[in-house]
Amino acid sequence: MQRTEIKALFQNSAELADRQVTVCGWVRTLRDSKLLGFIELNDGSNFQNLQVVFEDAKIDNFKEVTKYNVGASIVVTGRVVLTPNAKQPLEIHADKIELEGASDPAYPLQKKRHSLEYLRSIAHLRPRTNTLAAVFRVRSVAAYAIHKFFNERGFVYAHTPLITGSDCEGAGEMFRITTLDAKNPPLTEDGAVDFSQDFFGKMTSLTVSGQLEAEAMAMAFGKVYTFGPTFRAENSNTARHAAEFWMIEPEIAFADLEDDMQLAQDMIKYVLAYVMEQCPAEMKFFNDFYDPNKALIQRLTDLVNSDFGKVTYTEAVRLLEEHKDQFDYPVYWGCDLQTEHERYLTEKIFQKPVFVIDYPKEIKAFYMRLNDDGKTVAAMDLLVPGVGEIIGGSQREERFDVLTARMEELGLREEDYSWYLDLRRFGGTKHAGYGLGFERLIMYMTGVSNIRDVIPFPRTTGSAEY
Amino acid sequence: MQRTEIKALFQNSAELADRQVTVCGWVRTLRDSKLLGFIELNDGSNFQNLQVVFEDAKIDNFKEVTKYNVGASIVVTGRVVLTPNAKQPLEIHADKIELEGASDPAYPLQKKRHSLEYLRSIAHLRPRTNTLAAVFRVRSVAAYAIHKFFNERGFVYAHTPLITGSDCEGAGEMFRITTLDAKNPPLTEDGAVDFSQDFFGKMTSLTVSGQLEAEAMAMAFGKVYTFGPTFRAENSNTARHAAEFWMIEPEIAFADLEDDMQLAQDMIKYVLAYVMEQCPAEMKFFNDFYDPNKALIQRLTDLVNSDFGKVTYTEAVRLLEEHKDQFDYPVYWGCDLQTEHERYLTEKIFQKPVFVIDYPKEIKAFYMRLNDDGKTVAAMDLLVPGVGEIIGGSQREERFDVLTARMEELGLREEDYSWYLDLRRFGGTKHAGYGLGFERLIMYMTGVSNIRDVIPFPRTTGSAEY
Repeated sequence: MQRTEIKALFQNSAELADRQVTVCGWVRTLRDSKLLGFIELNDGSNFQNLQVVFEDAKIDNFKEVTKYNVGASIVVTGRVVLTPNAKQPLEIHADKIELEGASDPAYPLQKKRHSLEYLRSIAHLRPRTNTLAAVFRVRSVAAYAIHKFFNERGFVYAHTPLITGSDCEGAGEMFRITTLDAKNPPLTEDGAVDFSQDFFGKMTSLTVSGQLEAEAMAMAFGKVYTFGPTFRAENSNTARHAAEFWMIEPEIAFADLEDDMQLAQDMIKYVLAYVMEQCPAEMKFFNDFYDPNKALIQRLTDLVNSDFGKVTYTEAVRLLEEHKDQFDYPVYWGCDLQTEHERYLTEKIFQKPVFVIDYPKEIKAFYMRLNDDGKTVAAMDLLVPGVGEIIGGSQREERFDVLTARMEELGLREEDYSWYLDLRRFGGTKHAGYGLGFERLIMYMTGVSNIRDVIPFPRTTGSAEY
Repeated sequence: MQRTEIKALFQNSAELADRQVTVCGWVRTLRDSKLLGFIELNDGSNFQNLQVVFEDAKIDNFKEVTKYNVGASIVVTGRVVLTPNAKQPLEIHADKIELEGASDPAYPLQKKRHSLEYLRSIAHLRPRTNTLAAVFRVRSVAAYAIHKFFNERGFVYAHTPLITGSDCEGAGEMFRITTLDAKNPPLTEDGAVDFSQDFFGKMTSLTVSGQLEAEAMAMAFGKVYTFGPTFRAENSNTARHAAEFWMIEPEIAFADLEDDMQLAQDMIKYVLAYVMEQCPAEMKFFNDFYDPNKALIQRLTDLVNSDFGKVTYTEAVRLLEEHKDQFDYPVYWGCDLQTEHERYLTEKIFQKPVFVIDYPKEIKAFYMRLNDDGKTVAAMDLLVPGVGEIIGGSQREERFDVLTARMEELGLREEDYSWYLDLRRFGGTKHAGYGLGFERLIMYMTGVSNIRDVIPFPRTTGSAEY
């Protein structure tokens, strides 16, 4: 069997006109009258379905075919007929239809529309719906765009470890990993759990960031990025948080905060442009069904063609204070900006993506570079409309003395970070990096507002199905 | 500062000749006589170092520069001088050398060669050595080649979950993930650990494979692949096993074992060809220093241009039995082939990569498709010289009745796999897939024989440093 994919059919329709082809796929809809029937067929290669026309006069199992249920997989051999005046560019007039795999009448994806909430309960089947097919295709293409972007710029893709003996951020709830007996773990003489008997000989957790290891790689390769899963054991049951998500973390040597922001901006624009170019049907679908103003594509296109805004934290707080009656949470210099503040800044005040820079050191991590004012650090968060923060980054503190002084202030022990400090002992350089939450980028690009709908099998508080 | 990367210098040397440029990098070696000095500089963009010539007559800090330690990071401004008769194509004659970051005299990477064992103890610095720089560059380029290969063929990149509530293979030691108190976990009334109070409301582990979820995605998109971390809590302290490693798992619908092998072969050849094209300096280094016969490149080139072998398990056992005095482990029909058997097959008998197919069902997983003989399954392992198995795959059992019968034989409960069985209830298709151990591919391509040397920060039994 020489199979033709539906995408290839649509792309080469002129050439294939009147030719006989064999296509495989799943029945999305099937309707029939006495002697004539229509199947909308999808094989996953193409967002749009292929229309298959079948006639009692031409196939020998017409009655049987009319009884196929939605979801059945079939193999169709037939003639390509161009239909320039119909909404689809072509259809197949079947000579033969074979059942590959039947679909039980209990198939939950009948033609009617289903809520995203319901679809989450059938995560193994939902990629067969338009919305999830479009989301996961965009996710795949965006991931490729990210690799392509960094590859074109000569970055090394660094696989940093997921299992870690340390907590990078010095914060954030972590998952413990263990092979010890859950009920009766071995104990030390003084009655504590004896982690020296655990698999790695110590207590280990799932990483919250690959940044520190990426810094080590950047001090050899100059430019590196990570792209892998990251974990948070936070008990936050919101539409924006998952316990397992993917993160991209570039790290660049001989570079400062300006270089870092430029890289972030270039990357975001590159990925958006690439996805719009590669996924026009999917993006049109999101534009028409997931944007109240059907303005998604216009907004993303504008963004690709304009510069992002930039504002210091101090100035941002001043601007927000003018609108403090709009917020549930107080806003003042020194506060951690809440999502409502972030969204107000990017959606109302700037009306485009905006970098907020130079945050108070107290609300940022120990490794961020202290500014000359002694109060703020060279941090940057990128805020985008509809989502809020999607990138958090900083120039890193390369000065050994300043870094160790800050660690001491925070009660971090030098011996726990000796290898990290080595990077400042042995040829340290100015360097910077950021973390991009991949799911938030997908939410931003598609208009899909719940993180559970942009991850194939989401892991959230209380839920790890499949 | 307009910086030029060393790679760009080498690539555009003709154009840049006699021009002044600024380069940044780390000092690999430094030697000097009274009035003249030489620095081998590396910035991570290029495998080969850049030679910097500095003279007391031309820079105002000659004495200071001669005291820089190996490992220091510096910024050099100078003139590009072509040196067509030297081993390096060009050098920089410095007008100015600035110290970016000093290197302490205790820097462990002095010029002498270090053992790979020693370098593992300084994993944060070892990417600055030739061997590890070459390995991690090849790893990065190979990862990109894999994404490129599948992208060109229209596959969807599927992010399957790492945290799982089930054990795909029905075997394999797994890491438990928990946020429960390690010493005093909550207990149920009958005294068992109450996992309903754990983060996900049940016991969860780190996945050993994304295959089952990938199958669900393939039943919508037709062609998908995963590429992400995978875990084994096996207590095997060998050169070939790590507790955390990366795996590629394609899954294709409307496809059988032959299609699966063709895909695997095409992928391997594509990746090898791409890496040899993109990393000539690194591959020459491996050829000259990591292959006893300096025949690595020749062997890989031959492989790209020839077909892989194919043999049934039954025939393979018969062939091995002829040489049974060569082996520590017994070989007989029904045995699980050991690494020594696998390597003998691929290295001695076939002298090239070989697929072994149609294994006894007893030694393979429940989801593999039963052959008509009722005794073997449509499995395939790809064996390669020097490594043994790097790919394991199969056609999947798409027949609901056959699958559930096999599950019952193995004591697997249908309710634990209801969503997986749904894929056979609702439009199942012939389908197949495989898993490629990414690190084994890198070992094969580079000749580096310990998995700890192809992972930036390896996790193995008893070791999770950094």
